[in-house]
Amino acid sequence: MNFTIRAPDQTIAPRLQQCIDTKTKPLGALGRLEALALQIGLVQQTEAPVLNQPHIMVFAGDHGAARAGVSAYPQDVTWQMVENFLAGGAAINVFSRQMGLGLTVIDAGVNHDFGKRPGLIDAKIAPGTDNFIERPAMSAAQCEAALGKGRDLAHALAANGCNCVGFGEMGIGNTAAASLLTHCLVAGGELATVTGRGTGLDDAGLARKQALLKQALTRGGRQRDPLVALVQYGGFEIAMMVGAMLGAAEKRMVLLIDGFIVTSALLVAHAVAPAVLPYCVFAHRSKEPGHTLQLEHLGVEPLMELDLRLGEGTGAALAYPLVQAAVNFLDEMASFESAGVSAQD
Amino acid sequence: MNFTIRAPDQTIAPRLQQCIDTKTKPLGALGRLEALALQIGLVQQTEAPVLNQPHIMVFAGDHGAARAGVSAYPQDVTWQMVENFLAGGAAINVFSRQMGLGLTVIDAGVNHDFGKRPGLIDAKIAPGTDNFIERPAMSAAQCEAALGKGRDLAHALAANGCNCVGFGEMGIGNTAAASLLTHCLVAGGELATVTGRGTGLDDAGLARKQALLKQALTRGGRQRDPLVALVQYGGFEIAMMVGAMLGAAEKRMVLLIDGFIVTSALLVAHAVAPAVLPYCVFAHRSKEPGHTLQLEHLGVEPLMELDLRLGEGTGAALAYPLVQAAVNFLDEMASFESAGVSAQD
Repeated sequence: MNFTIRAPDQTIAPRLQQCIDTKTKPLGALGRLEALALQIGLVQQTEAPVLNQPHIMVFAGDHGAARAGVSAYPQDVTWQMVENFLAGGAAINVFSRQMGLGLTVIDAGVNHDFGKRPGLIDAKIAPGTDNFIERPAMSAAQCEAALGKGRDLAHALAANGCNCVGFGEMGIGNTAAASLLTHCLVAGGELATVTGRGTGLDDAGLARKQALLKQALTRGGRQRDPLVALVQYGGFEIAMMVGAMLGAAEKRMVLLIDGFIVTSALLVAHAVAPAVLPYCVFAHRSKEPGHTLQLEHLGVEPLMELDLRLGEGTGAALAYPLVQAAVNFLDEMASFESAGVSAQD
Repeated sequence: MNFTIRAPDQTIAPRLQQCIDTKTKPLGALGRLEALALQIGLVQQTEAPVLNQPHIMVFAGDHGAARAGVSAYPQDVTWQMVENFLAGGAAINVFSRQMGLGLTVIDAGVNHDFGKRPGLIDAKIAPGTDNFIERPAMSAAQCEAALGKGRDLAHALAANGCNCVGFGEMGIGNTAAASLLTHCLVAGGELATVTGRGTGLDDAGLARKQALLKQALTRGGRQRDPLVALVQYGGFEIAMMVGAMLGAAEKRMVLLIDGFIVTSALLVAHAVAPAVLPYCVFAHRSKEPGHTLQLEHLGVEPLMELDLRLGEGTGAALAYPLVQAAVNFLDEMASFESAGVSAQD
């Protein structure tokens, strides 16, 4: 599958910076928000950017490896949490409502038959991946299908007028998949460093998880090709996110990147098409230790550090007001001239 | 002046923690937001806290020392920025509008005659403080008057139904006053450490500011008594904030603390009445270097770190959605039981 992503044209950058610098504030005084305003102005190629119909997409999928014991929770929690999303009772529902974000839940491969349900997009590739400890998580064809559906979903959002999309996920066992992807795609990402407690493993659980991941690597190898790594260790929700991220960047949307698992999808997307990066806003630094390594690999700093480790796109939703604030100060603040305020001595 | 502040009763804490822990998320997975939810539940003494009519108060005042050259901007910028606030064009206007926060601008002592103006509270103590390099910034009676007016303003907000107030300030030269207050009230707060570039001094400007502050200290001494330090070096906007903070805590409001100058007011308030602290939410870590020392002195961690150094309460406004999110998850998220989600293995 070919994705056509072009990094934003930089021609407008000096004009944008000038616009930021003449606002009624000391030079640089809005710190990170100023860099964010510049970035979004570049993405949208305008000095008057607007965020339209901002949206969170939550991709859900099950992992064969979950039944081997890589998580503190039983696999059924994936579908139960999808039901919780549909009922409006999960954290991402609360935060999306608060921030005025649309929310779409996508069944990318949950091991459960939901039937036709309002608010749930059926994009199921299969009822869960295979157990990557014993065999590749998915076939190349399944991976391709997931990428394509992800891209279609992002393009559909864009066609509806959305230009800012946050990514979230739900899948018991998916920190294990994310750890393996990170190990494969990040130089220096040793297994012990990139494997964390996920939803809350104790010391024994963490040791078991690490031993299982070592087994998986012995079988499947430390794959450096992003799509091969994805086939070996990924999840359907991760693969579909990769496609959605690349599709969203094709449509020049602002991408809000959540925590460890979402960033593992971005590692794949970035290895496929590096030009995706300037479209990404990094919402927060997760408490999962491998996340910091991912962020360093990409050379980026997240906006917030709240010790979140929930997933679902909650960090992306919580960071949205900062993104909106960056756009708003650019659009709405007076300039020294327009306000009649004396400039620096 | 006596302020009667009682730290929140802790009896309800275990029930609140239980409520947080049974939400459909791994234990502790909402990180800092969970501690925030607990804090606000304690402040309001309920498992169902609500933020009513949240509000930003911006206190403006001029500093005699500004004319001696402690700032990169001329003193006139104080009143010009007040005009900008009244016209809706400053950063705090933009962010308050975005976050749905009320905004009140208070003339605590600006060197300008505004006349009667809608949206501006005239609480002027005098048209600017005296130059603390030559004599005390204010008299004890002026300080007392500022504290009293601040308290009255906070009580009036509470009477109107507001239970969450953010503090902001405007005053050319007030980082200099904040540096001296911090030097006085924080053990180890050496002048070189607590004196920063404010709105953007260059190296020569910073050296001049430090020399002037050393002169002021030679005259007025490193006062350990908070109100004596306030009289010697404070600003009317700082003194009035101290009164407003203590008054807000008397009314059991949630206090949103902004950056370096607002925290210098809180240092005074905290030295007067330590029980103010559990009512405070620390919005962000300012880029002004003394702020970190202030936060360490108080033993607190701010929510965000965005390299802001603008003042006006902008950090407080930007942090508000996180405070609201903490309340919302407590109020709106389903529990494992209510959502039918399996708990941890």
